[in-house]
Amino acid sequence: MARWKPNARERLEQAALALFSERGYARTTVGDIASRAGLTERTFFRYFTDKREVLFSGSPVLEKLIADGVADAPPGTAPLEAVTAALGATAPMFEARRSFAKKRRLLIAAHAELGERELIKLASLAAAVAKSLEGRGVAGPAASLVAETGIAIFKSAFERWVADDEQRDLAHHVRASTRDLERITARRRSPWTKSRRSYA
Amino acid sequence: MARWKPNARERLEQAALALFSERGYARTTVGDIASRAGLTERTFFRYFTDKREVLFSGSPVLEKLIADGVADAPPGTAPLEAVTAALGATAPMFEARRSFAKKRRLLIAAHAELGERELIKLASLAAAVAKSLEGRGVAGPAASLVAETGIAIFKSAFERWVADDEQRDLAHHVRASTRDLERITARRRSPWTKSRRSYA
Repeated sequence: MARWKPNARERLEQAALALFSERGYARTTVGDIASRAGLTERTFFRYFTDKREVLFSGSPVLEKLIADGVADAPPGTAPLEAVTAALGATAPMFEARRSFAKKRRLLIAAHAELGERELIKLASLAAAVAKSLEGRGVAGPAASLVAETGIAIFKSAFERWVADDEQRDLAHHVRASTRDLERITARRRSPWTKSRRSYA
Repeated sequence: MARWKPNARERLEQAALALFSERGYARTTVGDIASRAGLTERTFFRYFTDKREVLFSGSPVLEKLIADGVADAPPGTAPLEAVTAALGATAPMFEARRSFAKKRRLLIAAHAELGERELIKLASLAAAVAKSLEGRGVAGPAASLVAETGIAIFKSAFERWVADDEQRDLAHHVRASTRDLERITARRRSPWTKSRRSYA
């Protein structure tokens, strides 16, 4: 146990997900997770503040990636374009953990306390994106509206990505959700009613 | 104290808001609130499960009003149109409590636990709107995207309404935010950068 083990963070995440699925989230302890990963509780707490946080350790990285992407978009890029490009640029990060993302999503859907944490992380992401947009000269109220719209696209794209049997990447689905939003706001007469078109 | 008093719910809400502003949210007890309202703690708990809930007692009413509004929109109404009309139809409810809404908003911004409860209520509202849209024949993924977009409009409109010195109603600001969103998604080249146009 004392020997240094590589990829401790990732192994703890994998162990936690496996145990949450096998025993249930509520019945898994930090000790169980550490033990399954071949590590100590002490090591666990070096990486995570609590059991719940194992599922959210990627959130600050994701937030920084997206906020920086918005800030660094070429001058003159329209605000929503800057946001959707930044969202699409996270695709490799998600692609590397498709299986993790799927399992994580099921757990979040099944446990209210995880769902609440997810809402807080998304609200934090929206605030960070709005701040980046303000840094680009977008006025506060418009920046918030664009940021919240970006989150709506992100959530929609993520659901499509998780469900996509063809395994197209998140950037593909961000573009698809953005096109849908364009159609939605173009006020066409009820384009989805009784349509057979698939939005997956 | 034993005598029946009219408008107990509203008086408890007003007392709570006054005390939260005077003493701070954390230092106000349920006993303080009941006493200020001239009622007993027992009466308080007939209306609210806890201190926090005093600020959210309107949420289920609001959710039902909006979800029913979406469900009852005339056949053929485009999905986002159904949502924005339902949001606008809540204007009288907000107009009746402009001062309450403003104070409530400041408290929520200042206390993380209230902000989290607000996020949960908005997520519940989005789910209810999506369900109403599905009932109208809108496919699941599109229903969620429209519902989340509606919440983005609602948040934006609410902020404008609170800040509006001309006291125009929430329906006015829902229309203004919807127009902004249409402009945003029409991909124009950075319409807000260095613009002097006011979005209030």
